[in-house]
Amino acid sequence: MIETPYLLFLGDAPDPLAAKVAQGIKDWRPENCVGQLRLEGCKADMKLPDMTLAEAKAAGAKTLVIGVANRGGMISQTWKKVLVEALEEGFDLASGLHNLLREEEDLAAVAKATGQNLWDVRIPQVKYPIANGEPRKGKRLLAVGTDCSVGKMYTALAMDACMREKGMKSTFRATGQTGILITGDGVPLDAVIADFMAGSIEYLTPDNDDDHWDIIEGQGSLFHVSYSGVTMALVHGGQPDALVLCHEPTRTHMRGLPGYQLPTLEAVRDVALTLAQVANPACKVIGVSINTQHMGDDEALAYCAEVEARLGLPTVDPFRHGADRLVEALAAY
Amino acid sequence: MIETPYLLFLGDAPDPLAAKVAQGIKDWRPENCVGQLRLEGCKADMKLPDMTLAEAKAAGAKTLVIGVANRGGMISQTWKKVLVEALEEGFDLASGLHNLLREEEDLAAVAKATGQNLWDVRIPQVKYPIANGEPRKGKRLLAVGTDCSVGKMYTALAMDACMREKGMKSTFRATGQTGILITGDGVPLDAVIADFMAGSIEYLTPDNDDDHWDIIEGQGSLFHVSYSGVTMALVHGGQPDALVLCHEPTRTHMRGLPGYQLPTLEAVRDVALTLAQVANPACKVIGVSINTQHMGDDEALAYCAEVEARLGLPTVDPFRHGADRLVEALAAY
Repeated sequence: MIETPYLLFLGDAPDPLAAKVAQGIKDWRPENCVGQLRLEGCKADMKLPDMTLAEAKAAGAKTLVIGVANRGGMISQTWKKVLVEALEEGFDLASGLHNLLREEEDLAAVAKATGQNLWDVRIPQVKYPIANGEPRKGKRLLAVGTDCSVGKMYTALAMDACMREKGMKSTFRATGQTGILITGDGVPLDAVIADFMAGSIEYLTPDNDDDHWDIIEGQGSLFHVSYSGVTMALVHGGQPDALVLCHEPTRTHMRGLPGYQLPTLEAVRDVALTLAQVANPACKVIGVSINTQHMGDDEALAYCAEVEARLGLPTVDPFRHGADRLVEALAAY
Repeated sequence: MIETPYLLFLGDAPDPLAAKVAQGIKDWRPENCVGQLRLEGCKADMKLPDMTLAEAKAAGAKTLVIGVANRGGMISQTWKKVLVEALEEGFDLASGLHNLLREEEDLAAVAKATGQNLWDVRIPQVKYPIANGEPRKGKRLLAVGTDCSVGKMYTALAMDACMREKGMKSTFRATGQTGILITGDGVPLDAVIADFMAGSIEYLTPDNDDDHWDIIEGQGSLFHVSYSGVTMALVHGGQPDALVLCHEPTRTHMRGLPGYQLPTLEAVRDVALTLAQVANPACKVIGVSINTQHMGDDEALAYCAEVEARLGLPTVDPFRHGADRLVEALAAY
């Protein structure tokens, strides 16, 4: 588990989108952020205090998190000076980039000399078991999508935040790099060895209080041919009691697959439910989350109303309308 | 690709079942076997000539294949003398055991000194791509099952053999350790990293002649919660034109999962077809393969006839009745 609180490293982010990992941490776990560290030319701003390493250290920060991605996911040479200095001043480093902190010889050497940790959250830190399929105590919700990147993580985080506000027992369970950096813990499912995928999700969502919900971040889609095996492992390893369907209505094809149309929400509902009920016969779909970012206000409301009437399920954009109605459906479970 | 022909190492197999890898190679690729090497007390016999290493070498053998598993899948110390000698006499070694040849220090050292290869077929040898979902030329069949270990590999090998006998163009595509040792090539899918599973199957079954069939070995089951993600990747990465359903009717629960009933053939048909048609809308189910090993002759025939009537699909036990009717369904495709 990565030590909090964090100093968020924004580097020389060429635009705000490049710092979306930092933005996610700031949005969902502001209590984990003491400040931000920006290099010359940085075009991103989390509206956190700009701090030097020494100032952040004095403010209690334990880990410098690389909250920015440059082209190719590389650890830029222009960052190295700060990263080395951070290790020397007693920070751990955490990164979700493709090329690993531990494989940078200079960083590995300084980390070893200083005794600090390098957290590469793309790589599993645990030897996961093979799934045993046994029922577990407590409740679980899984976000399943018509496609990749339709808002499954956002939906899960928004539901988790809303539940905790209402005094419900809830834990967001991260299954991807950004989610792991936001919470400091989770399973980097896309990097797990095939045989252990479902087992890693059982490990992530163990026995809990009867009235506790694990809100499991989804990955991929059962209808995305590149990643559907990962989604399948979530459906069976997670043993969800509840599914929330996630959709982005303006997509013209599956992400990265120009020849593939998106499935209907009905098709996702039927296949996901059939498969989820293998592990948990009580599983049901409790609502629909629509990512309306490319729609006007009226269009967004009209679209949600249309889906709600068609599927007979509470349908909202949690970013635009809040996650309350999805959470109410869980509370009434 | 592992060099053939092989000398099959049966070690001190405590019973014939312990040598099932060797038996598979002998049954399906007898032309790849020059002989067998047995230690004192070996209770398995492939009815191949017993040979010393020198005799096998003279007969043209290139690789000593460990065709036996002892308890725990370990490389026994009693085998080491022969394995080291084989490397020194110019053999490669191949193994599907859990503990790896390359991690045995003595074997690794001798292999390095002699320049021979150690093939651990449990470990991917290739950096597979992420699946791109693009259509490929040629035809593909995938075996999908109601459970693990119901006869998917056997069905695929029997269909492949029958097709080649009839002069059809066919290649068995191995996706597990035994299949890889039988053919010398394939993808150890259960050991592939999640993100690359479907891509590894695209890699395994590339463009081919329009009238060529890849007969893809299945793994797991969409209804087996421990391994369903692996199966899902085969369904989408394989882009099958045809599915054959595999079932063992006397199982009382899913393999390794006492709390889980087997799904019906209809349930497997419907879910597998729905998901396969995402990647290949033309996909259809062409037949059913029943593993009747625990049934009498009459019972086996009656069961197949009942399934055939119920599903309206050619239904046979390829071991007992031959694979001809399944192959005829492919020929008529």
